[in-house]
Amino acid sequence: MPDNLEHLTTQERLLEVNKALNNGMFVQVRRMLHQFPPEDVALILESSPQSERKSLWQLTDAEQQGEILEELNEDARDSILALMDTENLVAATEGMDTDDLAYVLGGLNDSEYQDVLAQMDAQDRQRLEQALSYPEDTAGSVMNTDTITLRPDVSVDVVLRYLRLKGDIPAGTDALYVLNKNDELLGEVPLASLLTCDPAASVAEVMNHNAESIPVGMEDSEVAKIFERRDLISAPVVDDHNKLLGRITIDDVVDIIREDADHTMMGMAGMDDDEDTFAPVLKSTKRRTIWLTVNLGAALLAASVSNMFEATISEIATLAILMTIVPSMGGIAGNQTLALVIRGLAVGHIGDSNAKTLIWKEVAIGLLNGFIWALLVAVAVVIWKGDVNIGYVIAGAMFINLSIAGLAGVSIPLLMKKFNIDPALAGGMALTTITDVVGLFSFLGMATIFLRA
Amino acid sequence: MPDNLEHLTTQERLLEVNKALNNGMFVQVRRMLHQFPPEDVALILESSPQSERKSLWQLTDAEQQGEILEELNEDARDSILALMDTENLVAATEGMDTDDLAYVLGGLNDSEYQDVLAQMDAQDRQRLEQALSYPEDTAGSVMNTDTITLRPDVSVDVVLRYLRLKGDIPAGTDALYVLNKNDELLGEVPLASLLTCDPAASVAEVMNHNAESIPVGMEDSEVAKIFERRDLISAPVVDDHNKLLGRITIDDVVDIIREDADHTMMGMAGMDDDEDTFAPVLKSTKRRTIWLTVNLGAALLAASVSNMFEATISEIATLAILMTIVPSMGGIAGNQTLALVIRGLAVGHIGDSNAKTLIWKEVAIGLLNGFIWALLVAVAVVIWKGDVNIGYVIAGAMFINLSIAGLAGVSIPLLMKKFNIDPALAGGMALTTITDVVGLFSFLGMATIFLRA
Repeated sequence: MPDNLEHLTTQERLLEVNKALNNGMFVQVRRMLHQFPPEDVALILESSPQSERKSLWQLTDAEQQGEILEELNEDARDSILALMDTENLVAATEGMDTDDLAYVLGGLNDSEYQDVLAQMDAQDRQRLEQALSYPEDTAGSVMNTDTITLRPDVSVDVVLRYLRLKGDIPAGTDALYVLNKNDELLGEVPLASLLTCDPAASVAEVMNHNAESIPVGMEDSEVAKIFERRDLISAPVVDDHNKLLGRITIDDVVDIIREDADHTMMGMAGMDDDEDTFAPVLKSTKRRTIWLTVNLGAALLAASVSNMFEATISEIATLAILMTIVPSMGGIAGNQTLALVIRGLAVGHIGDSNAKTLIWKEVAIGLLNGFIWALLVAVAVVIWKGDVNIGYVIAGAMFINLSIAGLAGVSIPLLMKKFNIDPALAGGMALTTITDVVGLFSFLGMATIFLRA
Repeated sequence: MPDNLEHLTTQERLLEVNKALNNGMFVQVRRMLHQFPPEDVALILESSPQSERKSLWQLTDAEQQGEILEELNEDARDSILALMDTENLVAATEGMDTDDLAYVLGGLNDSEYQDVLAQMDAQDRQRLEQALSYPEDTAGSVMNTDTITLRPDVSVDVVLRYLRLKGDIPAGTDALYVLNKNDELLGEVPLASLLTCDPAASVAEVMNHNAESIPVGMEDSEVAKIFERRDLISAPVVDDHNKLLGRITIDDVVDIIREDADHTMMGMAGMDDDEDTFAPVLKSTKRRTIWLTVNLGAALLAASVSNMFEATISEIATLAILMTIVPSMGGIAGNQTLALVIRGLAVGHIGDSNAKTLIWKEVAIGLLNGFIWALLVAVAVVIWKGDVNIGYVIAGAMFINLSIAGLAGVSIPLLMKKFNIDPALAGGMALTTITDVVGLFSFLGMATIFLRA
């Protein structure tokens, strides 16, 4: 085992830890886990199967356990919480930032949560209850309360002396906030300004009046967009009366961005974004059931469409062989449009003012695609099967299905958005069902009309 | 039109701009565009169809055009660059950060680029050529060179006086870097420390020795992981000899995270993540062709599998009706596993040490899923078609296909990763092809063996 683990990547660290664990070298494992920063230990825990996770947790540094817990994803957090008793947990979470504390305790059931609350000191309990009073996924639920505030009439020199006396500035602080006597936000003074301005100036003279303040009820993904657009490092959070409640820092925003992206990507495949990479088999299987059930419904619906044309199929077996091509192409073309629109909605490109333009554009692409692929597939089929009439039928069905795919790909997510359904979750399944049904119906329907003797 | 546009969301702003533009109120539009910050103007341009985009660009503030350009996505940037002559462009990009400059000029063809280069001032040109010398998607290509550096032996007091004299600290600076005489990085001094420490102390005494430094050749998504894990705001970039080359700031990292997420999400649907939401119809159609071509190949392959069983299908038409169910369920189940593994690889959960555990886990889920869905589908089919033998056949095929789907869903991305193929791009198509072929082959194959008279 290398003596200096500092320059290893996390995967290499994981390998070392696993090697030592499998060889029963618990003292070594403990030494390594104590040496790594908590975020790396969290990643190692997430990357370990359930059984090893337990042994590893027992070997972590008790001092670090709180910080490790706050870095874990929900599933892994829950599996660790199950190993801790109330006393452990209270000790581990002492002095934690409110937003992190809310996250960690969010994994407890009601009675466990009450137990922990009862053992916490009064101030922490009050801060926590405050933090939990904001709805999930709003600015309030991700903010911290560790702001440094100033009055506008003091001089910068006084501020500098105050900071030196205080001796410590919370992590992620890039500005101090200026409040009037009613605690209303007047502006902010960046740390950089404090270092460059004339110390004789007053806070009011050096402060930035246009501080981007975040309403406490704003959705967290909106907050992330503002941070991204304005290149912010932190921003003050205010209530309806412009009173300062706390601040949001970029590290929390990065987590929001990552979670939103995960949610979209996993959701499109019918998965929960909280799913642990190493969740137990039974739990995973159960979770994946919903989507498979929905899909079975969609598949049976498609089969019942084919069933309407049983007579035609039994007369011309070639139709059965070719009938999967049109739905397949429709699904792909529709999904391309769907992905573009979901991304556009997420980034904020699409609204009432340009939805029509987008619909026309995607329908035009659908028609053009329909024309091109109708031609190509017809040629391929005529060459393969030597039957010109089947070529006509598949061309017609392909044109219809790709046109509908374009229309469905753009209108499904727009409609879902209107009804507050997440298009990333349900859009793909809805789209594929439409392109399957339309594809089969148009192909087999036209075949019944034109090809039957 | 409201007089105060400050409190509108970007979508509302877009609506106002469009209304004014459509009514020919160009003076109003110009006034609005001059009033908005450049990042909002960029979003408005991206959200506008090609024709309007041109008119809008002519009405933007010439002073802002550089900043607007650097905020645009690639496609929109290119459509705007086509409207600018060399002189315009040189004026707009003057004094831009090197990484942004490299991005903007990256949209030019070689001769245009040489023209711009020839008209730039010598210092900017040198900085640009330096920036462009680093491979795309590495730390070097996203870093800035606007670092403030210190020597270890000066006192904090001297540093404070120097900063006050300088009067300006670059945006996103949270630390100054300490170098020895050979320009090698010794550590960093956070701005917060400068404000809280004893001014009589030396830089060496207050500096942080464990500054997380980024090797210039590191992949940008690795850089993003480090920023995320360590909650960094900026980090120094060094060469192989620990010499300071520049710094990376969190705003660039946020862009990397967003782009990587976009790339995965769009890539899984067979789309280019640079695709403009309002790209021209012909351009979009052309871009989407590759994926549709690949899919046509896959669909024809699946059809050729069915073709092998033409005799069976023409004898029992019910098979044709049911034959799409098994591939469809396999595709969904396999894609669930695939999404989990792609996410796990991206986050860094999966490596050599735990790949085997993951494969076994997903195969176990596949077998369990196979068993459950074989039973359910068989029951549904027997009730629907009243034929117990077809129930046996579809149950067998479902079990085989879902087991294979689990195995393929986990091994395809792991194999692709080994061969440096992006699993987000090609994984889904490869998986669906396998589940289609295996699904059809097992269902029709078993039907041929067991059901033919």
